Amino acid sequence: MIATKELLEKYARLAVRTGINLQKGQKVIINAELACAEFARMCAKAAYEAGAAGVEMDWTDEESARLRYLNSTEEYLTTIPQWYVDKADYQDDQDFAYLYIDSDDPDAFAGVPAERIAMAQTARRKAIKRHGDNVSCNRVSWSIVALPTEKWAKKVFPGCTAEEAMDRLYDAIFKAVRLYEEDPVKAWEDHLAKLQERAKWLTEQKFDALRVTTGLGTDLTVGLADDHIWGLGGEERSNGAHQPFVANMPTEEVFTAPHNKKINGVVKSSMPLNYNGQLIDGMSFTFENGKVVDFDATLGKDVLSHLLDTDAGARSLGEVALVPCKSPIYESGIFFYNTLFDENASCHLALGSCYPTCIKNGAALTNEDVDALGGNDSAIHVDFMFGTDDLTVTGLRGDEEIPVFVKGNWA
Amino acid sequence: MIATKELLEKYARLAVRTGINLQKGQKVIINAELACAEFARMCAKAAYEAGAAGVEMDWTDEESARLRYLNSTEEYLTTIPQWYVDKADYQDDQDFAYLYIDSDDPDAFAGVPAERIAMAQTARRKAIKRHGDNVSCNRVSWSIVALPTEKWAKKVFPGCTAEEAMDRLYDAIFKAVRLYEEDPVKAWEDHLAKLQERAKWLTEQKFDALRVTTGLGTDLTVGLADDHIWGLGGEERSNGAHQPFVANMPTEEVFTAPHNKKINGVVKSSMPLNYNGQLIDGMSFTFENGKVVDFDATLGKDVLSHLLDTDAGARSLGEVALVPCKSPIYESGIFFYNTLFDENASCHLALGSCYPTCIKNGAALTNEDVDALGGNDSAIHVDFMFGTDDLTVTGLRGDEEIPVFVKGNWA
Repeated sequence: MIATKELLEKYARLAVRTGINLQKGQKVIINAELACAEFARMCAKAAYEAGAAGVEMDWTDEESARLRYLNSTEEYLTTIPQWYVDKADYQDDQDFAYLYIDSDDPDAFAGVPAERIAMAQTARRKAIKRHGDNVSCNRVSWSIVALPTEKWAKKVFPGCTAEEAMDRLYDAIFKAVRLYEEDPVKAWEDHLAKLQERAKWLTEQKFDALRVTTGLGTDLTVGLADDHIWGLGGEERSNGAHQPFVANMPTEEVFTAPHNKKINGVVKSSMPLNYNGQLIDGMSFTFENGKVVDFDATLGKDVLSHLLDTDAGARSLGEVALVPCKSPIYESGIFFYNTLFDENASCHLALGSCYPTCIKNGAALTNEDVDALGGNDSAIHVDFMFGTDDLTVTGLRGDEEIPVFVKGNWA
Repeated sequence: MIATKELLEKYARLAVRTGINLQKGQKVIINAELACAEFARMCAKAAYEAGAAGVEMDWTDEESARLRYLNSTEEYLTTIPQWYVDKADYQDDQDFAYLYIDSDDPDAFAGVPAERIAMAQTARRKAIKRHGDNVSCNRVSWSIVALPTEKWAKKVFPGCTAEEAMDRLYDAIFKAVRLYEEDPVKAWEDHLAKLQERAKWLTEQKFDALRVTTGLGTDLTVGLADDHIWGLGGEERSNGAHQPFVANMPTEEVFTAPHNKKINGVVKSSMPLNYNGQLIDGMSFTFENGKVVDFDATLGKDVLSHLLDTDAGARSLGEVALVPCKSPIYESGIFFYNTLFDENASCHLALGSCYPTCIKNGAALTNEDVDALGGNDSAIHVDFMFGTDDLTVTGLRGDEEIPVFVKGNWA
């Protein structure tokens, strides 16, 4: 068995130390599926050992959620009580750290009408938009780590027994988060320093736009927001507290904010996307002046359609991220059906809101100020992958064209 | 295996139909330990099939709670945020029905300092006192049903393997809730009609007090509240809605409100009490004019002490309940370490608040009005058993003495 108690406890400590970087006296929310209860409790224990004042468990259950999506009244699905909003505000204001244990079953909501999920999710996201902004602005510390469940593992390794599939998925995850290193915390520090170098170089280039092309038919010019900054998964709190945290484990990307009025051309997805337990594949988007004017998908077009209808900002881009084919996750050859991994195997874009921290002084700006600089705002932020091993990325600055990626890797 | 899918689904339907008696369009909260997830989902499904507008899962986890009790700061343990209070109020005002799936591990919090649990519970109960009152006044419909977990089953049947213990506990529970009957809903209607006859007779007696004596040394005179009514576990909503529900499954008792200034004498417990995952045994209380003036316990005296310190009302009685030794639960010979069962095997009293519905028109009265009639008010309501097979209960009315129980059974 790959997932020994020792390794799981090591993983829990890494999530608390490097992931949310829990500060002594801080409070924590641990969000987890029931199936991940044992690991969630290990994280709670690790948090207390690191000096947490208190740990709240926020349990989710895809099976109950499926029943709710299928059977509740529309009114029930779309009514977000005020206490729910107040709870999110309270936890943010009390400086809770958020640890999300991601174990999504890629088929959890297969067959559920897409509009039922969309109406519920949109109502929820709009109601707690302030919390969403606090997360994307790093006003709170947060981290997403992954844990296999049988359903997920069997989807990734369909030819294996449940036990083999779990072992292989655990192994892939443990490798991706550097858990086999003797000192994973140190390994993460080194890794983030390398990403930081890339991000620094890109920020200094002050590109106006990136042109991306692939053999699949992508030819897109992505204007970049004014005063944009390239960031990485190792983040700093924007509230002044010195608390570097790692929002995604693993993370292999550097990313910034596109200009939401300066995106033109066509982009084709290079991998399926598991969005909220429903799969979308074969996506194609045509952009004009920053907005999606046409789109298609070979699978899950209805899901995508509802996604784009969330709000005005859902039809523009909030993130462009660069990940080379030399990423260890790409090289593993595993398709994870999980964005936390798949987005770190491939260059990607995100529909919806930008991270305001990708704009100089952005966390201190209003949504309107951010928008004026080209930073996009929306209740959603949904990554999709377009990178391939024949990808070319060219930096455009005035008349200059600077090679950034050639054949899927750094030029 | 006793607990087949068919029987569990039948049980879920019984809990929804007879327990909370869900009305079409009503919303439901299902409160359950993670270990009961599968049955909780069956209940959710049964609720939707019965026309629920929506079902909310309220998951609890004793292991996480134990970590919290042991490791949180005092401030964290005792701070109840406003959103938590608002949530309870919202759910009551929206007429949610409450289905509690009880699976308490009797040793869940063994070794946790009693004052840590007490401070957390007291803060919570005081904060949501309005909700507590709504429950005890039947302004909401609610029901507690039980489900075995391995820890609980092994405590009840320590000599058995986990599997045998689970089978035996399932069997005992299924018998107690009449699940093996072809039509359990009808069996419950018949059972409740019989309890209703007893309650009616007792109410008509208009006793001033009951005198209870046992060979263990109990000799207590329990004055009854003015205008008291004897009730049973099959209840009517007090908000005018016709929705008879069964608050406890099983239920074998008839009960009423003592007069909180007219209780005198000594009572000795006849069974251990599992209170919040901590055991209390060998209890003895001395009452003067309705208040505990002395108490002792051979086990868990500190737990009991904190309980009595909750508030002023915690030192008086809110319930006197009569259960004959001929109760099928008593006759099963099983000690369940769970009040839902043990209180239905034995005459019992409850420290803390009365059910205002045990006083004529009580749900419409203020707490002050109820108190003026002798009905007790507190943030707690904790049953303890004193019934034995040599119990005598005598009704006192003026100079009259009317035998009610002789040798543990109806006279």
